[in-house]
Amino acid sequence: MLNRTEAITTLPSSLLSALQTRLGERLTLALAHRQQHGRDESPFDVAPPAAVVFAESSEDIAFVLAQAHAHHVPVIPFGAGTSLEGHLLAVQGGISLDVSRMKQILAVNAQDLTVTVQAGVTRHQLNAELRHAGLFFPIDPGADATLGGMAATRASGTNAVRYGTMRENVLGLKVVTAQGESIQTGSRARKSSAGYDLTRLFVGSEGTLGVITELTLRVYPLPEAVSAAVCFFPSIDAAVQTAMQIIQLGVPIARCELLDAHAIRAVNAHDKLGLREAPMLLMEFHGSAASVAEQAQTVQALAREWGAQDFDWATTPEARSRLWAARHHAYLSALQTRPGCRCVTTDICVPISRLAESINESVREVEAAGLLFFIVGHVGDGNFHMGYLIDPAQPAERETAERLSHQMVARALRLGGTCTGEHGIGLHKQGFLIEEAGEGAVAMMRSLKRALDPHNIMNPGKIFSL
Amino acid sequence: MLNRTEAITTLPSSLLSALQTRLGERLTLALAHRQQHGRDESPFDVAPPAAVVFAESSEDIAFVLAQAHAHHVPVIPFGAGTSLEGHLLAVQGGISLDVSRMKQILAVNAQDLTVTVQAGVTRHQLNAELRHAGLFFPIDPGADATLGGMAATRASGTNAVRYGTMRENVLGLKVVTAQGESIQTGSRARKSSAGYDLTRLFVGSEGTLGVITELTLRVYPLPEAVSAAVCFFPSIDAAVQTAMQIIQLGVPIARCELLDAHAIRAVNAHDKLGLREAPMLLMEFHGSAASVAEQAQTVQALAREWGAQDFDWATTPEARSRLWAARHHAYLSALQTRPGCRCVTTDICVPISRLAESINESVREVEAAGLLFFIVGHVGDGNFHMGYLIDPAQPAERETAERLSHQMVARALRLGGTCTGEHGIGLHKQGFLIEEAGEGAVAMMRSLKRALDPHNIMNPGKIFSL
Repeated sequence: MLNRTEAITTLPSSLLSALQTRLGERLTLALAHRQQHGRDESPFDVAPPAAVVFAESSEDIAFVLAQAHAHHVPVIPFGAGTSLEGHLLAVQGGISLDVSRMKQILAVNAQDLTVTVQAGVTRHQLNAELRHAGLFFPIDPGADATLGGMAATRASGTNAVRYGTMRENVLGLKVVTAQGESIQTGSRARKSSAGYDLTRLFVGSEGTLGVITELTLRVYPLPEAVSAAVCFFPSIDAAVQTAMQIIQLGVPIARCELLDAHAIRAVNAHDKLGLREAPMLLMEFHGSAASVAEQAQTVQALAREWGAQDFDWATTPEARSRLWAARHHAYLSALQTRPGCRCVTTDICVPISRLAESINESVREVEAAGLLFFIVGHVGDGNFHMGYLIDPAQPAERETAERLSHQMVARALRLGGTCTGEHGIGLHKQGFLIEEAGEGAVAMMRSLKRALDPHNIMNPGKIFSL
Repeated sequence: MLNRTEAITTLPSSLLSALQTRLGERLTLALAHRQQHGRDESPFDVAPPAAVVFAESSEDIAFVLAQAHAHHVPVIPFGAGTSLEGHLLAVQGGISLDVSRMKQILAVNAQDLTVTVQAGVTRHQLNAELRHAGLFFPIDPGADATLGGMAATRASGTNAVRYGTMRENVLGLKVVTAQGESIQTGSRARKSSAGYDLTRLFVGSEGTLGVITELTLRVYPLPEAVSAAVCFFPSIDAAVQTAMQIIQLGVPIARCELLDAHAIRAVNAHDKLGLREAPMLLMEFHGSAASVAEQAQTVQALAREWGAQDFDWATTPEARSRLWAARHHAYLSALQTRPGCRCVTTDICVPISRLAESINESVREVEAAGLLFFIVGHVGDGNFHMGYLIDPAQPAERETAERLSHQMVARALRLGGTCTGEHGIGLHKQGFLIEEAGEGAVAMMRSLKRALDPHNIMNPGKIFSL
């Protein structure tokens, strides 16, 4: 059963009746639901599951997994459906296990700066709830993803340069194993040396080891002062050099985002912003009023040395929201610049000293190939995304995008980086993972998978083949 | 072979001759070496290995492991010997694999704020080297441990409140597996979503899954300004409440340490410090000059509300070193207050809102039991150590200490905490681990262990029994 060669497109009748008896209307075989659950935001074609379950509790999930384990049927955990790497496609059929109804915020421990939530809570929902307590959860991948999905993908985004990624901000998990048993990892303590780090094993496991049903997260006091700024550079290189020096100086910048001229052109069209169409850094500073002012001053002086112009400060929440909305719309805005196109998104992350080289070479290659593209980057972390806007009806364009993407990854690996900073491996980067980690390390990952999921029911076909 | 019932006190002759042929004088059977390698700083009796190997390269280590794997003989990685939980005792015999000669700093990438070192480099050695580049590595468990050992124990210490633990600061590892194969985990990128987090699986694995031979670490710019302060409180509770509010306000304090009156009495005697013998917070602030001044002002105002007295500021490196030396001598100083005693050290970590309750109840219990004790705590993280000073010739004292320790752990678990913040499980806390994580999670850990080390050669008998 490890090497399932045919997708399970129809559930065995004994499994189906057991699920129907327990779950009732929470199980559906309707094509519309199955198609909606057989896709994500990746450019891959739909691969629908045989059934969709809308779980409403950890007990539902444990029941489904115990049954699926007994029948050797795949289960794909599903949150908000915002994966960019095909994680949610039911490539071996089976059951899509939708946790989006599990939206309870179970505890807010303001004094301890921790919260415990069900896996279907989204980051916007959590932050709306936390605001009243003077707290926030910083991880911001752009999409309003579920926290379960963000943990499973080891997501990060715009605040990671200061606050870390899901890796650093998940304190503990409740997980249902492939056998349908519920376990707890971690605790509410900020640190622990108690045995193997099961929490970090599940963070980034892409649903292949079990189902995350609850998360205990670190949260942070809302900063006393927040200030955002944009400025524009004569070249991408100048913007990236500025970001590099900000990090090297130890400025505790909270966000440090790059948009290239193409991305700005797209968001200008979409959000009517009127920004200068030149490489831009969009930055945010958190702290006391004095500290924010000092950080801003340091950064402004640095940026001017690299030729930055048109500094614009946004200190009101409304002005900041407008800028960040534009940033978060970059992907959708870019899609609209070429009607009918799909976007192939790259996600390399390199040591920051090699970031300018990585971006510049990638731009040179894509311009030579003649594809439309845009760049957004979490440049404080050395992470950037190039989006290739391809016509799905033109196979040659996808092939070109794949070739460029492979060149970019190969270069990132030569420079000491990774093929994915935050989107995960999913379906698409399995070859890259082997190039990056080596056969020995991937063999070790496979050993761990076999130990925890011997029938290969958990999101099979993702991260690696068995 | 999984359940080895007798310690391997003599190596099989074929293994011995293979090792001797390759390693020459790097292999020793001398009793003095074996005894020195069969102990650590825990209060347990010596359990010497059958042989000691002084590895000088990853290739040495791969050779030893391949041989040991073929012969099903245990291997215990050994760094500086500073474990407090019996990690280094050869309880099932075999080979102590000493990596302390592997002291090369392989790369300092100042622009990227990363370094790559061999596992035998100690934190003092690294910081001496980094100082010239204007950088430092913050993790400070007190002892001058090797970085390989610190990773294996998921160590932290005085700077963790600001900079995190080894979990957050190891970017990648070179590991030799139990089969003697070398793999690389992670990269020099600051973040990655590329497959399972093998790095975090090895960080905290206590030598039970393989041998860490190289580490890539995050390092930080030396702060522009550093200021340390002490102040004294009318009660432990007042000191802990102050620490709690500092964290809740989001003050980016770099160190926040508690010493109780017993610990201060001991360091006064040892270091001639003349400190007031009352609960003390020892704090450090890092940042720009203005930011440090602002943090100090905020904290001073808070502390005064809780009755703090005798604020004393140390802004010169010498004055700071004197204070931190006293903090780091607390353990040895306390041992000297009762000649011939041993110290049983606890290590619980709780959500910070429960820290005062944890400490106060623990003090009440130990005072009722009549044992000598002292407290030091990384209170910004909710982590503290109570040291019970026991006479090893009095079994009743050890039993009392064990009983108190168990009560303290049980309470920490009820309060959402962990039985070990930074010392690890080792030999002594295996029952606590099951209480904390549950049978299901420990069963999962055992599955991972069996998958990666089927002959149970890597530091057998630690963390859990198989």
